[in-house]
Amino acid sequence: MTKHNIILQPSGSRGQVEEGQSIRSAARDLGVEIESICAENATCGKCMVLIEQGRFEKYNIDSRRENVSPVTAEEAAYFGRRPKFLKDKGWEVGQVRLSCQCKIQGDVLINVPEESRGNKQIVRKSATQREIEIKPSIRKYLVTMNPPTLERPIADWERLAKGLETSMGLVRRGEENLPRWSDFTVDYQCLRTLASTLREAKWNVTVSVWQDKEIVQVQSGYHEESYGAAVDIGSTTVALYLCNLRTGEMLAAESEMNPQIVYGEDVMSRIQYTIEHKDGLEKLHKAIISTLNKLLKQAAKTAKIKVDDILEMVLVGNSTMHHLLLNLPPKDLGLAPFVPAIHKSVDVKARELGLQINSAGNIHVLPTIASFVGADTSAMIVAEEPHKQDENWLLIDVGTNAELVLGNRKRLVCTSTPTGPALEGAHVEYGMRAAPGAMERISIDETTLEPKYKVIGVDGWNTDHAEFKGLVKGICGSAIIDGVAELFRAGIVDSRGKFKKELKSERIRQGESGWEYVIAWAEETSIGRDIPMTQQDVRQIQLAKAALFTAARTLLKRSGLESPDKIILAGGFGSYIDKEKAMLIGLIPDCVLDNVYAVGNAAGDGARIALLNIEKRKEIESVTRKVERFELPTDPEFQNQFMLATSFPHMSEPFPHIAHLIPNRVADPLAKKFMEK
Amino acid sequence: MTKHNIILQPSGSRGQVEEGQSIRSAARDLGVEIESICAENATCGKCMVLIEQGRFEKYNIDSRRENVSPVTAEEAAYFGRRPKFLKDKGWEVGQVRLSCQCKIQGDVLINVPEESRGNKQIVRKSATQREIEIKPSIRKYLVTMNPPTLERPIADWERLAKGLETSMGLVRRGEENLPRWSDFTVDYQCLRTLASTLREAKWNVTVSVWQDKEIVQVQSGYHEESYGAAVDIGSTTVALYLCNLRTGEMLAAESEMNPQIVYGEDVMSRIQYTIEHKDGLEKLHKAIISTLNKLLKQAAKTAKIKVDDILEMVLVGNSTMHHLLLNLPPKDLGLAPFVPAIHKSVDVKARELGLQINSAGNIHVLPTIASFVGADTSAMIVAEEPHKQDENWLLIDVGTNAELVLGNRKRLVCTSTPTGPALEGAHVEYGMRAAPGAMERISIDETTLEPKYKVIGVDGWNTDHAEFKGLVKGICGSAIIDGVAELFRAGIVDSRGKFKKELKSERIRQGESGWEYVIAWAEETSIGRDIPMTQQDVRQIQLAKAALFTAARTLLKRSGLESPDKIILAGGFGSYIDKEKAMLIGLIPDCVLDNVYAVGNAAGDGARIALLNIEKRKEIESVTRKVERFELPTDPEFQNQFMLATSFPHMSEPFPHIAHLIPNRVADPLAKKFMEK
Repeated sequence: MTKHNIILQPSGSRGQVEEGQSIRSAARDLGVEIESICAENATCGKCMVLIEQGRFEKYNIDSRRENVSPVTAEEAAYFGRRPKFLKDKGWEVGQVRLSCQCKIQGDVLINVPEESRGNKQIVRKSATQREIEIKPSIRKYLVTMNPPTLERPIADWERLAKGLETSMGLVRRGEENLPRWSDFTVDYQCLRTLASTLREAKWNVTVSVWQDKEIVQVQSGYHEESYGAAVDIGSTTVALYLCNLRTGEMLAAESEMNPQIVYGEDVMSRIQYTIEHKDGLEKLHKAIISTLNKLLKQAAKTAKIKVDDILEMVLVGNSTMHHLLLNLPPKDLGLAPFVPAIHKSVDVKARELGLQINSAGNIHVLPTIASFVGADTSAMIVAEEPHKQDENWLLIDVGTNAELVLGNRKRLVCTSTPTGPALEGAHVEYGMRAAPGAMERISIDETTLEPKYKVIGVDGWNTDHAEFKGLVKGICGSAIIDGVAELFRAGIVDSRGKFKKELKSERIRQGESGWEYVIAWAEETSIGRDIPMTQQDVRQIQLAKAALFTAARTLLKRSGLESPDKIILAGGFGSYIDKEKAMLIGLIPDCVLDNVYAVGNAAGDGARIALLNIEKRKEIESVTRKVERFELPTDPEFQNQFMLATSFPHMSEPFPHIAHLIPNRVADPLAKKFMEK
Repeated sequence: MTKHNIILQPSGSRGQVEEGQSIRSAARDLGVEIESICAENATCGKCMVLIEQGRFEKYNIDSRRENVSPVTAEEAAYFGRRPKFLKDKGWEVGQVRLSCQCKIQGDVLINVPEESRGNKQIVRKSATQREIEIKPSIRKYLVTMNPPTLERPIADWERLAKGLETSMGLVRRGEENLPRWSDFTVDYQCLRTLASTLREAKWNVTVSVWQDKEIVQVQSGYHEESYGAAVDIGSTTVALYLCNLRTGEMLAAESEMNPQIVYGEDVMSRIQYTIEHKDGLEKLHKAIISTLNKLLKQAAKTAKIKVDDILEMVLVGNSTMHHLLLNLPPKDLGLAPFVPAIHKSVDVKARELGLQINSAGNIHVLPTIASFVGADTSAMIVAEEPHKQDENWLLIDVGTNAELVLGNRKRLVCTSTPTGPALEGAHVEYGMRAAPGAMERISIDETTLEPKYKVIGVDGWNTDHAEFKGLVKGICGSAIIDGVAELFRAGIVDSRGKFKKELKSERIRQGESGWEYVIAWAEETSIGRDIPMTQQDVRQIQLAKAALFTAARTLLKRSGLESPDKIILAGGFGSYIDKEKAMLIGLIPDCVLDNVYAVGNAAGDGARIALLNIEKRKEIESVTRKVERFELPTDPEFQNQFMLATSFPHMSEPFPHIAHLIPNRVADPLAKKFMEK
């Protein structure tokens, strides 16, 4: 087998790898993780690397582009859709490659740009720029013992525990309160194989200790790394992150659809399923467990570790996902007075749930706050830490249901509200998921009333390129917000959300289901039909944003605040919407625009943080115990507020930060009533 | 259904019971437990009661013998075998009845004699007369909660925990260090049914708390009693005692053969089986678990409770039984250097072992001390408490293997020795188990050299009654000791154990396998053959007693003692042997005879004590940690001592307390060598 020298920059990792291996795979063998989310299908572009050319004396290699396989058709297609990106970066195709496609055929020096690097330390971006200290629940110790003799026939467990006490003392010299050997416990299943492991290992083992007290794994010989998995169970998607518990590195990220979807799309219909079917809970529980096991297996494969070496999992999800995961009947989550089975975090052995990590491994599920403010919200708090701020922050996780947390170190209040599926592009006539072919941005010229749009997977506006024709399939969530905001900004709909039929534009017309505005003509689409936004679509967004806004407004009022100092949008949705447009339609309260942050999957990040740092678990336990919960329907003002909040941006309060965008044409911001229709 | 008034003395319990019910069953309904071990077959006689005659003004009843069913044939047969017993007690048949057979047909006042009473408080008889304080690991609390409302939608678990904190505070007013609600944990399986139980119970439940911290059962409404089981797993017999954890009452005692016997009679052959068969451990483990489940079911039926209401089990057994119970490979117990997997006690959930008490119930297994000094010895220490004495006590548990513990509050030493099966009547030519037809006592006239004997199930000596003919089947363990001692005392064998062939008696003869002494002629037996004790039988006892004596002597020597202040014989064997005879043959060291106690099943009692009092568990944990272990084969003196110890009573030391019994005919107590044969 021919081998070649490769060098990876900026880490300087180097080694010999086999001819024909992909750069991404070779890099991993050398300990350098390169991102990828498309399972190496050349579609995500996360794994881009640069092939440097020249003679590098330091490493004694001659690196050339010809030393890797030629650019593939898939790579060419990918980069072909990104001319502006290449221009901005100053890269040319051939220099930049997708490392999953590009195979090694000679010596090369490879530069892994920042954005492609895996193994990132957890640095929370946006709102709270900070590093997370690694304090995992699992620590490993090498323990060397004298074998038993007739004179000293002390039992295996006591021999190990005494050895561990010594070893722990050596490793953590000077730390106070180290446990004594008689304080250690051992997981029963771990005890079962102890005798054979100790002898096989010739009394030289690595002991994994959970929370400084329970021995959960004993391995023959020396082992440095231990592993854990953080999981965010969404109603739609389950995302699992496999981490090295010592370094904090993320070794694999895997995701799957939540298999419970076949039993009901939203949480209420899944709760209903468990009520109506005797084995309903069992089915939903087993479905998620089996998907988690699949993800664990995939992740372990990616990271080239054994699933049995995963010693802990931290899971988050909304209260219904939480109950179904733990096999707790979710019935009372869905019936007034809406009560979860448990608030506090749950620690349970993996084998009790049938999760196929090490059977002695611990499963930690973050605390729930209320029936509709679940462990995912707890995780969002872990990630964002509003409870450590002086300023008042408003955290919003938008999905079919939105959870909101408002406050600072003195007080946190929370609530939730159903927003419906419109914000995720569902129940909107041409709505679709954020996938290639979906419009992701819409802009309307207020003079000509002509639109332009951007499509996922293609650079730039449709008006810039001829090749856009035939690409568009539908409108994703972020573009729906854009579209409604632009319809309002351009004066095509009024502050009540009604189409101004008198405007002169062939795009404004009476459609099948009422008035509509055509964004893309049939010939621009891949579906051969005009794609409009309809009166009904606008109505859906009005209802969704009214719910969200009313919830935020209620929390502000209860906290005696006019507006939040910062707004933090969590979840995939938050990352894609245009903050200004969201504020323009009154989806979020008025705030300095620079203080509105999109932080991505805060729940997943929170799960990862809790996995890597046990102090955070204690912290969130006490924080959630103090969070005040408001159930909106019990608020007497709710219905009234809700009606007012359907207008753009909101009929009863000023929005100074986007006031300049409110069209002159819309002249009735103080109308007392809405929806006379 | 006709009902009658019954009064039970001395408790004074009274009530109305249905006509035709047995007295034993009626008594239980009134809360009075009457002993029985024969499953109501009229054979054990444990359930005897007295029917009092006369008019009892206090209770306003007229009690007559005719108010119960007539004496049955089985009862007549039983009492027919006990004329002396009846005479001694001054009872007549008809007055005394077997309560399992005797049915109620009218008003009666019944006297339950001491020996028939169940429900005894645990009062350790013999050596340590004391009562055991009841401090079980399970406590029950009635918790009444306000149902959740929209305004106060706190989760079920937190609601329960807060209610429990209040309730515990009310019940245990003034106690310090009561747990706070946030300190409670809940068993995962218990949590799963919490929501439905709370609602079904209308928020009024009884909570069972394990060790003041973990909630293991939540029952609808008010429940006062909780239950536990103590188990002594012997290599041959498994005995289970079902107890009320609040009162300490024993509600049922069940026993079965240990099913592992089919895989090997002694511990070594069972260890061997697990080594030689891949699924050996699994088979042996499952066998004992399934027998325990059967016993639990039977006991629950007897006590009329649900198996699911049993919330804890405490188990003891030798180290091999301990390992097989816990599914731990016993290999290293049987191979030098003879090491158990664990010394300290094990707490494990019932469901982990497949034990079918409440799945959240705890299984507590007492600590082991060494490879051949197991949890049964720990239990014996719990029962006898040598570690609380000023005097030096020698505890001996005799079986196929004997465990010995010597010492006082300052120091305890222990060892074990294989004694072989001879002491239990096995490997002796006419040996048999202690069952009807077995000789239990033997006496030989030193002048005429004629024997007499007693048989189990019949009163008096054979020489007293004509009806003894045709009854005898064999010799049980206690009679073997008797027989050998008497052969020695009568001078028929010398101090080396050899038959004196020159003595004139037709009973001393050359048999098929060497010299022998005939105890029963063929016509006295039910087997139609002479029953002798042979030279080989004497040899077996010599080997067994030498092992036991050497072990005891080694411990004494290591402790710098001449002799123990008390000797405590545990186990069934100890209860039946004649202490004087045992000392005469040198089975136990010399000691004031009144200071030799037989305490019955101390291991079973210890298990029961540990079940009823958690302080005792902590105590034995720390005591066993300090017990010094000696492995005899590592003692250089062992072989030498062993050879000397085969003589009667012992060649190298005085036995002042039985010196008067040593026959003049035996003149060589200082012979230097033994067994020249």
